[in-house]
Amino acid sequence: MRFSDIGERSLISRITELLGGLEHDDCAVIELDVDCLVVTTDMLHRETDFPAQATPWQIGWMSAAVNLSDIAAMGAEPLGVLIAAGIPPETDLGFVEEIFRGIRDCVKAHGTEVLGGDTDAHRELTICGTALGRASRERILRRRGARPGDLLCTTGSLGGAGAGLKALKIGRTDLARRLLEPRPRVREGIALARTGAVTAMMDNSDGLALSLHDLAEAGGTGFVVEYVHIPLADEVRAIAESDEEVLDMVLSAGGDFELLFTVREDMIDDVRGACEFTVIGRAVENGIWLNRNGIRVPIPRSGYEHGSQDEIRSRVHSHR
Amino acid sequence: MRFSDIGERSLISRITELLGGLEHDDCAVIELDVDCLVVTTDMLHRETDFPAQATPWQIGWMSAAVNLSDIAAMGAEPLGVLIAAGIPPETDLGFVEEIFRGIRDCVKAHGTEVLGGDTDAHRELTICGTALGRASRERILRRRGARPGDLLCTTGSLGGAGAGLKALKIGRTDLARRLLEPRPRVREGIALARTGAVTAMMDNSDGLALSLHDLAEAGGTGFVVEYVHIPLADEVRAIAESDEEVLDMVLSAGGDFELLFTVREDMIDDVRGACEFTVIGRAVENGIWLNRNGIRVPIPRSGYEHGSQDEIRSRVHSHR
Repeated sequence: MRFSDIGERSLISRITELLGGLEHDDCAVIELDVDCLVVTTDMLHRETDFPAQATPWQIGWMSAAVNLSDIAAMGAEPLGVLIAAGIPPETDLGFVEEIFRGIRDCVKAHGTEVLGGDTDAHRELTICGTALGRASRERILRRRGARPGDLLCTTGSLGGAGAGLKALKIGRTDLARRLLEPRPRVREGIALARTGAVTAMMDNSDGLALSLHDLAEAGGTGFVVEYVHIPLADEVRAIAESDEEVLDMVLSAGGDFELLFTVREDMIDDVRGACEFTVIGRAVENGIWLNRNGIRVPIPRSGYEHGSQDEIRSRVHSHR
Repeated sequence: MRFSDIGERSLISRITELLGGLEHDDCAVIELDVDCLVVTTDMLHRETDFPAQATPWQIGWMSAAVNLSDIAAMGAEPLGVLIAAGIPPETDLGFVEEIFRGIRDCVKAHGTEVLGGDTDAHRELTICGTALGRASRERILRRRGARPGDLLCTTGSLGGAGAGLKALKIGRTDLARRLLEPRPRVREGIALARTGAVTAMMDNSDGLALSLHDLAEAGGTGFVVEYVHIPLADEVRAIAESDEEVLDMVLSAGGDFELLFTVREDMIDDVRGACEFTVIGRAVENGIWLNRNGIRVPIPRSGYEHGSQDEIRSRVHSHR
């Protein structure tokens, strides 16, 4: 059996089992004497992870942002980022330096720094970021923890990155900024953790659908999302041509990097002051549902997944 | 100007400057309230970093070992490893699982664990490991710290990995084990840090020559290595055909993963009980020298370097 037969998620399950089990959170958690350390790593490749139109600065920004978003998702304070970069030998130095300027600007914008890294020669530009953060043991937010009845919330708006993908296809680069320069919700994550009212949290980087399934699986619950409460990004309104396209951008496209979290209903007022967010639904006993015009339809476990047949066909073999 | 025009070391210098300066140690150091956290990342590629003869288990072992060696080089205790893996879609699942068994066996053998990671589809197998460790603020060992007069020491023996490279070329796989299954000196690093007598330390993974230059640069000193005191690996004795080849294996080949460290001469007895090691020379005011038959010759700054013209010619473009 090959990697392409089973996709990334199944492979991760097998590897996790082989390694003796891992917690499924956005970061690994290590308890130190005083604080908890959280740490995460993400590998990004030129062809499969960065749109062809991305500038080198945006490539750098994205590389730092995706890792900082995982730190934010734990409600942790970033301690720094490490960057390992595999760089094609023929790459212009100015291009490489722009990548690192993008990384620097992203970490600075989120109150942290580059701690170190590694560079070597590689055929395809590959950037592997690792971010570290700290959080107090009592305040750290995990994917598990939601209980039926909890309110389901999201920061910011949804679908902006998915709309950006379409924008690039039709030459509307002006509408692709959310896709190319994602803003990790670091300040919001820390503020939400401090409230003590959030029961579970993760980022929605793989799309709302997959994120809801992950959150449900970790907590042993289900979720109902109210269609009318979904905060649509302006880019979705500008570019989507049908309800189906709107839903695809929100649920499946991925790349939004908002925080998806649950709150005990009786404590929602404690969260109001922490940051801007929208209540989009509620945790239920089981199932992942979209409530639209009074009808509940199941939300399938679809979203951006590396290594699956579709992704391989459309990305790895396209050599764009 | 292109990456291939300047090589990895110069690129790192430029990036370091761009990022506002970084300490040149094997790991980044973050001071927490009680202990120091150390963290390191290394990206390895199928074609440039793993000999073609390496088994998948050995690929996994090496990926964990190179990162654990950096933790050892700081005298730190490993807290865990994260692995991001880019895997070609056509890779057999059994092969992937063997890689992760190798990773698991290596981390277990050194008293630590895999904390998390990331997998995705990538054209060339690429494994980016990140290792974390802890050390007390007073005990942590850095590259800077050697003073003229300090004794220069190494754990284990030297040249075994370089000999392994030649062994693979001539079909003597039996002599390549040190190359393919490097043993990070985790126990030794912790024990050396506890003595309080070690003034500077790093691993020699890029070869003795480059490591000496790095150690000298960090400490503002020089070093004299006594040829007769170099502990040659058995593999070097078995396979090297000339003195020149011996020196090349020891000084330039890289891949040995021993600890190179300096000790105050009056405290050498405090170090004797920590681990097995050999005194191979001494820190001096300046210059990197080999003392052989009473003649001092300079040791050039040569060693394994990614992205340099030679490496690119011989590795990236060879598609072996």
